[in-house]
Amino acid sequence: MNDEYYMEIALELATRGAGYVSPNPMVGAVIVKNGKIIATGYHQLYGKEHAEVKALKAAGDQARGSTMYVTLEPCVHYGKTPPCAPQIIAAGVKRVVIAMKDPNPLVAGKGVSMLKEAGVDVKVGVLEKRAKKLNEAFVKYITTGMPFVVLKVAQTADGKIATCSGSSKWITCEESRKVAHRLRAFYDAVLVGIGTVIMDNPMLNVRLVEGRNPVKVVLDSTLRIPEDADVVKNEPERLVVVTSVEEGLPKEKRLKDVGVRVWHVRGIDGKIELEPLLKVMHDEGIASILVEGGSSVFSSFLREGLVDKVLIFMAPKISGKGLSAFDGIRVEDIKNAKEFVVSECKMVGKDIMVEGYF
Amino acid sequence: MNDEYYMEIALELATRGAGYVSPNPMVGAVIVKNGKIIATGYHQLYGKEHAEVKALKAAGDQARGSTMYVTLEPCVHYGKTPPCAPQIIAAGVKRVVIAMKDPNPLVAGKGVSMLKEAGVDVKVGVLEKRAKKLNEAFVKYITTGMPFVVLKVAQTADGKIATCSGSSKWITCEESRKVAHRLRAFYDAVLVGIGTVIMDNPMLNVRLVEGRNPVKVVLDSTLRIPEDADVVKNEPERLVVVTSVEEGLPKEKRLKDVGVRVWHVRGIDGKIELEPLLKVMHDEGIASILVEGGSSVFSSFLREGLVDKVLIFMAPKISGKGLSAFDGIRVEDIKNAKEFVVSECKMVGKDIMVEGYF
Repeated sequence: MNDEYYMEIALELATRGAGYVSPNPMVGAVIVKNGKIIATGYHQLYGKEHAEVKALKAAGDQARGSTMYVTLEPCVHYGKTPPCAPQIIAAGVKRVVIAMKDPNPLVAGKGVSMLKEAGVDVKVGVLEKRAKKLNEAFVKYITTGMPFVVLKVAQTADGKIATCSGSSKWITCEESRKVAHRLRAFYDAVLVGIGTVIMDNPMLNVRLVEGRNPVKVVLDSTLRIPEDADVVKNEPERLVVVTSVEEGLPKEKRLKDVGVRVWHVRGIDGKIELEPLLKVMHDEGIASILVEGGSSVFSSFLREGLVDKVLIFMAPKISGKGLSAFDGIRVEDIKNAKEFVVSECKMVGKDIMVEGYF
Repeated sequence: MNDEYYMEIALELATRGAGYVSPNPMVGAVIVKNGKIIATGYHQLYGKEHAEVKALKAAGDQARGSTMYVTLEPCVHYGKTPPCAPQIIAAGVKRVVIAMKDPNPLVAGKGVSMLKEAGVDVKVGVLEKRAKKLNEAFVKYITTGMPFVVLKVAQTADGKIATCSGSSKWITCEESRKVAHRLRAFYDAVLVGIGTVIMDNPMLNVRLVEGRNPVKVVLDSTLRIPEDADVVKNEPERLVVVTSVEEGLPKEKRLKDVGVRVWHVRGIDGKIELEPLLKVMHDEGIASILVEGGSSVFSSFLREGLVDKVLIFMAPKISGKGLSAFDGIRVEDIKNAKEFVVSECKMVGKDIMVEGYF
């Protein structure tokens, strides 16, 4: 078995932390000795033991002379837990294979240096592309101070997110909706505009698959949110209402009384300013946001250049005149359309899923 | 080598007739003896020698005791050429492998029967699905008396065929436009509305790839076509203008003088009635139509249930508010959207191509 084989297992282990470790990265580790996997570990919960240490503990004395495969460069600094690199050295690991360096330019390379100086054989870059993609939200978060923004659009083949009369349940097939719920379990927060809450009364939680519920963020500049909306009634402590009204209104108090967080962010043209909001979200430890609509919110994010990734679920149906995802944007010359690069395109049930990066 | 192997070669040969044999089917034939291909043939030009006869001539005496692979059941009737089945029998072919039966229910099976009665070993159905797809236009044409209708839509990821100011050159990438020209070379006629002619002044011919030019059909109920339009200036003899105005207007005469055909088809609500038009096209020997727009024409074809297949070229770009391909249709409840089944979805250059059947 070659390095890629074991790294693939380490990556698979890393993904098990999805939804639970943010804003820390997902990390997996595999310890191999004499061609046999003797221990594994992954980062399971934010602030808890790192993957490397879990694997080392599972290996015990057997770690001496082994090779460790780890999806991210081992750390050298004290965070919530003691640094990993010294423990790898102390355990007598002979060789460390790393998928990607720490993306934080201030620390990148220090783990590798420490290991090398201690005489450990180090290889970096095995399945690097996949490791970087798995932790793309963490990479953005740690290098830019802004969360990673993903737009999830469910539309017809003629690009409509609702018919001329506003009907939108359901555009996509059940398999697509399951994938959408998996995304909610993967990303830290799901964000919608107040129009979507009033029109569709969504739950914004994870029901069709297993996984933890994300933080629910509603952009509601004038605090119109119905107090009996499903997002308020279900897990109000996971709800953040972002508004531009003055602080301390009775409605704000009532929302807070049931556990809802209310954030005040300045508005412009009746809309929440997105860049300051994203900075607040970053500071609250939200590394990734799944934006689910509606058209006005999609358009604002794109217009302000704040979108990292788009996931379009396109159903094979034609609905004619209606609302498109980005109707809040005006482009005169097609040459000025906002381009992205397709990274994946596949069938999900009867639908087509397109993944792209801006 | 098995039957599929040789049939694949026969199918590849058949496609070489694309654009030249309609409304006859594309047919390819391969003659194999002692595990060697000794002759091939394909239907090259409408009314000319059939694939089987070409292959038999190439094989000469060697045909005796051979196996023939042919993509369509050999004919038994005198058409433009003498029937093939008797010639296959006369040549002493021992075994005939056929991809698909003649789709015409009145003749299907007669070729097979004749061969079997003469003691030839016959096998039907090898790569049948592919053979049927290759000749799907012919199948529709011969079984229903109507041409096969394909809509070709070039749109942005948010479903727009033009921006808010009408800009649409170019939405898709060069590779997509090459595929679009290949479609023009493949289908018998290309059809657009007069709005598209006035707005975009298209040539509607094949330039980006090799291939023959299709018949150009313009729906122009009130005969607004500019006499200096590129479709008139280039190959006027390939242009058909379909109108509902009274016969014999001076403009009609001028168009006819330069070689343009003018068809009079009744109109309704200022639009050409499509079903009678399709019947006329069928009677003129047009087995397949590539509809290229605009929105009003796409919508009419879909509304009237006249679409067999849709090919959507989706560019990875967002253009915001603008015109969608089917904005002439109104669907209130999303449950009533017009559904199709995706048969293929692939990248073409930077774009995504979706093929679907209604």
